Amino acid sequence: MKIGKSTVPRTAICTSDENTIVVRGLDLCQDAIGHLNFADYFYLLLTGKQPDAAASAVLNATLVAITEHGFVPSVQAARMTFAAAPDALQGAVAAGILGCGSVILGASETAGRLFIDVEQRMAAGAGVDEAATAALQDLRSQGKAIPGYGHPLHKAVDPRVGRLIAVATQAGADLRYVRIAEALERAIPGITGKDLRMNVSAAIPAVLLGVGFPVVSLRGVPILARTAGLIAHLAEEAETPAGFALSYQATRELQYDGDVPPGFKTP
Amino acid sequence: MKIGKSTVPRTAICTSDENTIVVRGLDLCQDAIGHLNFADYFYLLLTGKQPDAAASAVLNATLVAITEHGFVPSVQAARMTFAAAPDALQGAVAAGILGCGSVILGASETAGRLFIDVEQRMAAGAGVDEAATAALQDLRSQGKAIPGYGHPLHKAVDPRVGRLIAVATQAGADLRYVRIAEALERAIPGITGKDLRMNVSAAIPAVLLGVGFPVVSLRGVPILARTAGLIAHLAEEAETPAGFALSYQATRELQYDGDVPPGFKTP
Amino acid sequence: MKIGKSTVPRTAICTSDENTIVVRGLDLCQDAIGHLNFADYFYLLLTGKQPDAAASAVLNATLVAITEHGFVPSVQAARMTFAAAPDALQGAVAAGILGCGSVILGASETAGRLFIDVEQRMAAGAGVDEAATAALQDLRSQGKAIPGYGHPLHKAVDPRVGRLIAVATQAGADLRYVRIAEALERAIPGITGKDLRMNVSAAIPAVLLGVGFPVVSLRGVPILARTAGLIAHLAEEAETPAGFALSYQATRELQYDGDVPPGFKTP
Amino acid sequence: MKIGKSTVPRTAICTSDENTIVVRGLDLCQDAIGHLNFADYFYLLLTGKQPDAAASAVLNATLVAITEHGFVPSVQAARMTFAAAPDALQGAVAAGILGCGSVILGASETAGRLFIDVEQRMAAGAGVDEAATAALQDLRSQGKAIPGYGHPLHKAVDPRVGRLIAVATQAGADLRYVRIAEALERAIPGITGKDLRMNVSAAIPAVLLGVGFPVVSLRGVPILARTAGLIAHLAEEAETPAGFALSYQATRELQYDGDVPPGFKTP
Repeated sequence: MKIGKSTVPRTAICTSDENTIVVRGLDLCQDAIGHLNFADYFYLLLTGKQPDAAASAVLNATLVAITEHGFVPSVQAARMTFAAAPDALQGAVAAGILGCGSVILGASETAGRLFIDVEQRMAAGAGVDEAATAALQDLRSQGKAIPGYGHPLHKAVDPRVGRLIAVATQAGADLRYVRIAEALERAIPGITGKDLRMNVSAAIPAVLLGVGFPVVSLRGVPILARTAGLIAHLAEEAETPAGFALSYQATRELQYDGDVPPGFKTP
Repeated sequence: MKIGKSTVPRTAICTSDENTIVVRGLDLCQDAIGHLNFADYFYLLLTGKQPDAAASAVLNATLVAITEHGFVPSVQAARMTFAAAPDALQGAVAAGILGCGSVILGASETAGRLFIDVEQRMAAGAGVDEAATAALQDLRSQGKAIPGYGHPLHKAVDPRVGRLIAVATQAGADLRYVRIAEALERAIPGITGKDLRMNVSAAIPAVLLGVGFPVVSLRGVPILARTAGLIAHLAEEAETPAGFALSYQATRELQYDGDVPPGFKTP
Repeated sequence: MKIGKSTVPRTAICTSDENTIVVRGLDLCQDAIGHLNFADYFYLLLTGKQPDAAASAVLNATLVAITEHGFVPSVQAARMTFAAAPDALQGAVAAGILGCGSVILGASETAGRLFIDVEQRMAAGAGVDEAATAALQDLRSQGKAIPGYGHPLHKAVDPRVGRLIAVATQAGADLRYVRIAEALERAIPGITGKDLRMNVSAAIPAVLLGVGFPVVSLRGVPILARTAGLIAHLAEEAETPAGFALSYQATRELQYDGDVPPGFKTP
Repeated sequence: MKIGKSTVPRTAICTSDENTIVVRGLDLCQDAIGHLNFADYFYLLLTGKQPDAAASAVLNATLVAITEHGFVPSVQAARMTFAAAPDALQGAVAAGILGCGSVILGASETAGRLFIDVEQRMAAGAGVDEAATAALQDLRSQGKAIPGYGHPLHKAVDPRVGRLIAVATQAGADLRYVRIAEALERAIPGITGKDLRMNVSAAIPAVLLGVGFPVVSLRGVPILARTAGLIAHLAEEAETPAGFALSYQATRELQYDGDVPPGFKTP
């Protein structure tokens, strides 16, 4: 069935013949394997360009920052899935990745788009604080949440934020979006009445956009990073099962609010 | 509901308080972000140990080697899924990862287990060629396929194999499993009558097992790597859609073999 | 980690003790198994109420209507995934379901919301045609597509539409949303210049909303239905493999638009 | 890339032209919509044949029996996933389905294969009890678990078992596999020393194999059924969120067994 206009698929990422695999114009074996670290190769695949030293430092740092944070919901989902279906590692990883959505890890992308909105207001003549305030007011008037500020555990300060900014500064990265992220942090109390501090989901785009990482792929950073974390958790699950114990604990205080048949006593 | 014996979940990967995130005994912000590249951090999470230089070189090389190979089935599945559900990047990545199974990318793990089987036969006194032949004969008598040898496109030589071995050699890695993989390659024609050459799914465990990468997580290497490739493909899909065109082309020669109602003419 | 306000999970769907499973107030074994067909039980789970005869007829009809339509993209994705990972049936089904997104099968829900928008304009005093035109104009001014009208194959008429409306009529269902769907069909040419006809994704909410099916679960109808279709396709795939053949066909006309290294000739 | 031998995909499930959709030889609109209930249509898709009254009764009963059992691990995984990614209902359903694996819901298929093993031993001359004992001894000597017997909650009796057998009996279904399942139940204490009683995962194949349901699709029954249950849970999650509360409760007693940096006090 023909859906859409184009019927011939096209790509600019990879081609190959029997002897050579070409990736973004490079010979994979001659030019990439052994020359680029994995994160740099990810940057190349996404952008078509090799990262400079600042981009390499910043991208590796953001991936390391977001890979692991204990038994978060997506890790629990993956470990329960693996406990039920241990033959299919890929299925348990997929279950975990499916929790990288708009509420939890997708905030990296939404925050990045907010920064670009502020940047565009500045390009139109506004100062950074004025632009930040205006962008936040727009979000609020649309009833949208402010992405990337506040954290359920790290309330005063998310320790990853300062460290990522330090790495970007030291690597000589363009800090334009860091300044915008800080301006938003300053403006938030005046708009919301709450002193929400920048979390890792704002720090990631704040440093990555300055090294040429594409905004459309920002959600890919937590997805890729968490995949590494999930694989480690599933290796631990295979050795020291926790999935069913998590599930048991989760429902110890479960309350059933529905009807029951005559004679049944809710446990 | 209590399933299994343990009711208290335990982990040794990560803990945190309001100020500090601890990962495998390190302070994530002080000791990992900005110090370890992403692949090295993955090694740390999996093994609890920081990789040495050889392990770092080899793990990065294997990840780069297996990240991307064009419009393979899992990439097609992911791009079709994204075309149908563009709001959920994580869903399209998950659909692609679900194709990392026993037939396609899972061979890395199965080949790694075969190498360890050969190694154990050698520990019991057999020479490498004798052990390789015996292990292959066992596989065949159980009716199992030989994992990691032969490739639909790279028939004479998979160019990634020699390059990965060169990287491992140059990095000073333990080459024990490379020698085993080569012995299997020599033994295959005598067992199968076919001259199947080592492919990337054998080369990956051949070099990784020598740098302390755990065999139980070998399938994690293609899963993590392909996640990076899938994210790049989905960024391209967002710009230059191919998913529906792939689907259209796929069925141009589709044959319907079933019954039809009276009067219906099969298209 | 505490995310959100509530820390005690609650449910009104199911509870159980050692002897009895209670579902929506019924004893599963005494009152449901053997008494309700599967689609009726789905209605009970969703709404807490047993369907009347009209609801049963209409829900079963919509599920049957949308279960199967050949090698659509989600079926292709599932069959490719199964070919690569045949040990994990659940993974291949999941890959297929992940393609039930906003562009393809999610239109059932979006169309249902459009019908309710029209209904609300009518409650405020507009006639059905006036309300339909206004709702469409609003969609267009927001740059949104019109969900549920037009089909790539069934251009003149989607044969499932008339049949679903006939079943609903015969069953004595409330046809209010069918009349709204028809008014939208009449209004579309004046707004878009194209004579797009109602497709199955509009017919499903048109008949289901009239029998009390909740709008928030409309997307569940194609998801549940396609799951049945996917399981049948994967049973066929296990017998008569097509996944890799689809993948091969899909790329026969693939064009590589990227750079190549010196000396490489694009295949 | 050509993988495998066949390059032309074939199917016998569905074809269509602009006016007609053909499914298993029937005209979908004329012969199926409004005539078959959803479960019967699933049977038709799988087998190519319309179910008789017994098959219809039994298949509907098994689907109803296995659709819902409260906050089991796969429901928890789905609800956590939805809480994190509420825009992608299909992703949360997929995460739940991925837990239908070998340990939890896949036992339906494994138990079905065990029944067929017993049947084949009977065809070779053994009595049912003798055949059951021999099949169990074989399982044990291979170190495999016995699928379909014992339940963490319903220890004395799984109430669904008797009800499914009653439905099958009343519908006039062939009860051959029920007798085999009962013989296995009698034989288990002698083999294992434990009085494990038939659970729903044994009862499903026990009744379904007698009405012509294919053993290769047995795992499809819990997958399809649970999809319906998951959709209901996700509708409840959208109204009354429990996903993050489950995740919070799950880790209240979590113990961290790993190292910590100097000065860090494990919470």
